[in-house]
Amino acid sequence: MYDCAIIGGGPAGVSAALNLKALGKNFIWLSSSAVSKKVAQAELIKNYPGLPDVTGGELGWTFRNHCEGMNIRLTEELVTGVYETDGHFTLLAKDKQYEAKTVILCLGVETAKPIDGEQDFVGRGVSYCATCDGFLYKGKKIAVLCTDKKFEHEIGFLAEIAEKLYVMPMYRGYEIDFPNAEVILKNPVKLTGGMRLERVAFKNGGIDVDGMFILKGALSPATLVHGLEIKDGHIVVGRDCATNIAGVFAAGDCTGRPYQYAKAAGEGNVAAHSVVEYLSSK
Amino acid sequence: MYDCAIIGGGPAGVSAALNLKALGKNFIWLSSSAVSKKVAQAELIKNYPGLPDVTGGELGWTFRNHCEGMNIRLTEELVTGVYETDGHFTLLAKDKQYEAKTVILCLGVETAKPIDGEQDFVGRGVSYCATCDGFLYKGKKIAVLCTDKKFEHEIGFLAEIAEKLYVMPMYRGYEIDFPNAEVILKNPVKLTGGMRLERVAFKNGGIDVDGMFILKGALSPATLVHGLEIKDGHIVVGRDCATNIAGVFAAGDCTGRPYQYAKAAGEGNVAAHSVVEYLSSK
Repeated sequence: MYDCAIIGGGPAGVSAALNLKALGKNFIWLSSSAVSKKVAQAELIKNYPGLPDVTGGELGWTFRNHCEGMNIRLTEELVTGVYETDGHFTLLAKDKQYEAKTVILCLGVETAKPIDGEQDFVGRGVSYCATCDGFLYKGKKIAVLCTDKKFEHEIGFLAEIAEKLYVMPMYRGYEIDFPNAEVILKNPVKLTGGMRLERVAFKNGGIDVDGMFILKGALSPATLVHGLEIKDGHIVVGRDCATNIAGVFAAGDCTGRPYQYAKAAGEGNVAAHSVVEYLSSK
Repeated sequence: MYDCAIIGGGPAGVSAALNLKALGKNFIWLSSSAVSKKVAQAELIKNYPGLPDVTGGELGWTFRNHCEGMNIRLTEELVTGVYETDGHFTLLAKDKQYEAKTVILCLGVETAKPIDGEQDFVGRGVSYCATCDGFLYKGKKIAVLCTDKKFEHEIGFLAEIAEKLYVMPMYRGYEIDFPNAEVILKNPVKLTGGMRLERVAFKNGGIDVDGMFILKGALSPATLVHGLEIKDGHIVVGRDCATNIAGVFAAGDCTGRPYQYAKAAGEGNVAAHSVVEYLSSK
């Protein structure tokens, strides 16, 4: 059982990890990718105190080096669910699960809004993890929304299991070449069904499916943690970075504007200290 | 008229200044000393993301270099009062005054609590600035509480004006050698009087005076800004770093725990963005 699980590898997650380490806590740090895409793409950052005129790539590299120097390791896995059980939290990540007393969410900010109906069918046809849930769709028809080229290998995995795939790539330069995969260049606007997902609707028309895989780097906070208070797309936190769920904290862009490195690092710092305070109060 | 006045030279002030500069605002940055004493004294800092294993001195130097590289200048003056007039703020600093549309308070955290009665006699016998108010005490008897060796030159200035000085140095290795100055190694516990300050009380006994100078690097927030909401010794702010006074923001240790560099830098970042939002809403 970890003292804390940090979800997210951006500046808030880095700061939370450095602080939990400095405070002597036993934690796991999970992120779907070792390098924050948003950080890596930043051109020139002038306002992160102490690192003048760095590119996003340099900032990410500097952060990563700082962590390595303190023997902090990032576990590269997408967390697909956080469940509270018996006063602690269980995190699902692919075929593994982790137990932690507290959680710090450093999820960044979603660029894509959830599809209408998406949250209603999570676990009832909607999945975020091909290797976890793919076997459920042997010989069936599935939709696959792929948000990034780096998830294409998961499509290959699904193509081996399902009878038919309708793949919707949300990026340029896709390479999807499987005999049973049909590429559809439309945006899904609504998911419908009864007890389970039955249909993916487009602006015009739709497809009947048995399930849908949404391959993306981070789930929306509300999808990831049931009952989390969200306002205007951001996790609601107090000045101590505590959410409405005892033991769950949040830091960085996911808590709201400004979307800034120093703000995110500051909140990771605060969240780590709040975790320590919470643990000692138990 | 400046868009903003930042008060305080620690990490929160540095971050606020870097961000206001990056955001193209016209501001003045005031601090009683160019180097934050608290930062300079820190031995080894491990948890400021991006700067592994720096001493406080190195961190301060790195911050200062970052500012210089962006042509940001710190004005070394102690602000002794912030007054709201006609929808803007007037800052008093020695014999000068500055006008600004907004204020960011980065005052750090007071290590010394105000003396019982101190706030009641501000402007009525209690002063924080020898060169501003010394002339009022020509030929009179004054108490001087000096918190740091660096303020000793102000005692010399007062010794030339007043008839008699009772000097209470709050540090070791003091060098106070003026014919009309008597050193008292006691802590003042209460200030009393009628319309004006009349007496400084110690645990045993006291002295009758016409005035008292308290020489320190930063005034308590409540003394500096009349009407500012304080709770448990910290300035009350929202997640946007706004105080209860429209146009006044606060960042860093003065807003509460944890007293940490990343937290302070993050709040300076947030406060600067809140200032910009506030200015554009006017």
